[in-house]
Amino acid sequence: MSRSRISRVVVTPVAFGDPPLLNVVGVHQPYALRAVVEVHTDSGLLGLGETYADETHLARLEAVAAAMGGHDPFDLHGLERLVTEVLGRETGGGGASFGGMLDVGSAVPTVFSPFEVACLDLQGRELGRPVSDLLGGAVRDRVPFSGYLFYKWAGHPGHAEDAWGAALDPDGIVRQARRMVDGWGFGSLKLKGGVFHPDEECAAIEALRGAFPDLPLRLDPNGAWTPETSVAVAERLADVVEYLEDPTPGIDGMAQVAARTDVPLATNMCVIAFEHLKPAVAADAVQVVLSDHHLWGGLRRSALLAGITETFGMGLSMHSNSHLGVSLAAMVHLAAATPNLTYACDTHYPWKTEDVVVGGVLSFEGGSVAVPTGPGLGVDLDRDRLGELHEQYLTCGVRRREDTVYMRSVEPGFTPNTSRW
Amino acid sequence: MSRSRISRVVVTPVAFGDPPLLNVVGVHQPYALRAVVEVHTDSGLLGLGETYADETHLARLEAVAAAMGGHDPFDLHGLERLVTEVLGRETGGGGASFGGMLDVGSAVPTVFSPFEVACLDLQGRELGRPVSDLLGGAVRDRVPFSGYLFYKWAGHPGHAEDAWGAALDPDGIVRQARRMVDGWGFGSLKLKGGVFHPDEECAAIEALRGAFPDLPLRLDPNGAWTPETSVAVAERLADVVEYLEDPTPGIDGMAQVAARTDVPLATNMCVIAFEHLKPAVAADAVQVVLSDHHLWGGLRRSALLAGITETFGMGLSMHSNSHLGVSLAAMVHLAAATPNLTYACDTHYPWKTEDVVVGGVLSFEGGSVAVPTGPGLGVDLDRDRLGELHEQYLTCGVRRREDTVYMRSVEPGFTPNTSRW
Repeated sequence: MSRSRISRVVVTPVAFGDPPLLNVVGVHQPYALRAVVEVHTDSGLLGLGETYADETHLARLEAVAAAMGGHDPFDLHGLERLVTEVLGRETGGGGASFGGMLDVGSAVPTVFSPFEVACLDLQGRELGRPVSDLLGGAVRDRVPFSGYLFYKWAGHPGHAEDAWGAALDPDGIVRQARRMVDGWGFGSLKLKGGVFHPDEECAAIEALRGAFPDLPLRLDPNGAWTPETSVAVAERLADVVEYLEDPTPGIDGMAQVAARTDVPLATNMCVIAFEHLKPAVAADAVQVVLSDHHLWGGLRRSALLAGITETFGMGLSMHSNSHLGVSLAAMVHLAAATPNLTYACDTHYPWKTEDVVVGGVLSFEGGSVAVPTGPGLGVDLDRDRLGELHEQYLTCGVRRREDTVYMRSVEPGFTPNTSRW
Repeated sequence: MSRSRISRVVVTPVAFGDPPLLNVVGVHQPYALRAVVEVHTDSGLLGLGETYADETHLARLEAVAAAMGGHDPFDLHGLERLVTEVLGRETGGGGASFGGMLDVGSAVPTVFSPFEVACLDLQGRELGRPVSDLLGGAVRDRVPFSGYLFYKWAGHPGHAEDAWGAALDPDGIVRQARRMVDGWGFGSLKLKGGVFHPDEECAAIEALRGAFPDLPLRLDPNGAWTPETSVAVAERLADVVEYLEDPTPGIDGMAQVAARTDVPLATNMCVIAFEHLKPAVAADAVQVVLSDHHLWGGLRRSALLAGITETFGMGLSMHSNSHLGVSLAAMVHLAAATPNLTYACDTHYPWKTEDVVVGGVLSFEGGSVAVPTGPGLGVDLDRDRLGELHEQYLTCGVRRREDTVYMRSVEPGFTPNTSRW
């Protein structure tokens, strides 16, 4: 049997409209950036990946893409080695910025990830099997997601109000949640906090509990609170939230809080790479880890993370940044093939109105997405849309995620709310 | 593309001649038992697995085999669930005895393992790719093994001396090592201890160091020593061994020793399942884990173990029981695709004279085996030999591994040497 080789790799940055969603470091810019990765083989197959598109990250993606010709799409270990070699000493964090919220020690996992996903897509297409089959098989037909609620302005400054309108108090959050639940059927809700005083955000969670008595709720202030405040919030919301995500920064801070509450603490900030697991386990700092294949080095490394959380008695959930359909497909396959991913996954998907994939495959029903059963990821590029969103990237002026800079253009003197309360 | 389904599963117990190798619990019986698992698909493919063949284990294999019809060979998670369901409450240890050396809490991983390996063999054959490609790709072309030295009698009582002759003192061990190194080219040596007083076994290691100044050496007494003795041996052999394997039983005992020596402690006794990892890490009890896909639930679970040892800063080596060529092929693919498996693997392979696989694929050169590059595991059954070794199973009278019982037939009153010295 012939063994296909990678013949061509194309990295296309795209921009898509993003509402003014508020968070601990500021506010989402008018456009979110993503890079779509195409990996072509000499056998005529195409595999897809999607990742961040900050300038530094893009340059690294391009450098790896240029070196991948002739590589075997099944040699993922070799591909990771190639990424390490290409990046050389240029592996420090900051390439894929996260609005300033995360500090990544090495760029290797984030750069490797979209190529790994594209290679798994290729493997699945070569075999006529869905990617979930390459990860041990789907344990569920549908993957449930939580409705991701944000404080937000009515619209970007200088622009008309968007379809969602403002959400700046408990009533606004409940209205937003109603729309999310009615439109997508979500069976759980997450509120992005860290924007207002914790009393305000607790009131919003309590209002959600009143409006949706049966839905699991989460609150994620991205480390806006001190350990002391975190304990107080945990006491107030003990019977209301299924977990608190990153109430305070750092493994030490989280461990201080965890020692004083039974509310599970989740994280996508203090445990975001494999080297953080040992100290976090030693300190019993977190009870739930949010996986993210973009951040942890692809689907197979995320499966490893899942096995580690299971082995060490931690829960597992899934993190999301603003993303398009290729990422959603990868998230769905990964979640489907991860037995212990028992929490509904996060997704920003409802917040976008544009995409690069052919529609119809990834639709939300009852808050969940059916696992594609076709070969590979099961999604295909809509080249017209890809071209349009690339053109939008070229003209929109955004070149990196800068929530704080954008916020300061509206509120001069704004500083991130980390550990503010 | 058609998706093959499992149509027929055959479990064949075989017996092959085994020399009188001495260990902490007694001596190897004249025949070692293995079960060869064949998984056939409706598309005409055959996948192979190999495992223990103690009676209780065989019965469990047969029960699972009978339930596998129609299963998708890519649905490994579903297969593990099926094993769990079939075994029901009958999951306690002892099914796959280990001569009395190991206490397995659940039979699920040992029963699942050969079927998982056979399914990966099938996947590779369907795709035309070696199993190593399904595990992320081979990071090495050849897998190095260590020469596995044993104290042994000249022959089984009542039988002629075997080709190896006796090895009951340092000179005998050095002679045996010479034969191993000359015949197979091993670049490292492991001595199975726990048979004589530790002074004798240290003298044997020191004699090996004198005879083979450049070869890494290991000593494995299978928990024959107290923590105090273990520390004394570690001091004596600190500059001689690359690690001490299971000097004393249990995570607590190993932790006591580890706290008092810089010699890495390896284990295949106190960390033999995922639930042992958290307490072992918390106690810093072991520095090297010996993986074994037969024991840990197959190749993918062994890859998970590898990722865990890497994440938590532990070394990784590979354990062996008496085995045939299907197991060797699986071990080679797994080791090839495990970047951090940097120690030479254990193998009993040189001790056997019979096999069930067609010869020529798995040959030792320079102490290592080339990773098969053909589809799947890359080995095929020799049905004549399979039939002969099955016939031998039927007539040999051995139905389970009973090192202590057999030793007592020679030395009445023998008791296992666990913690003896």
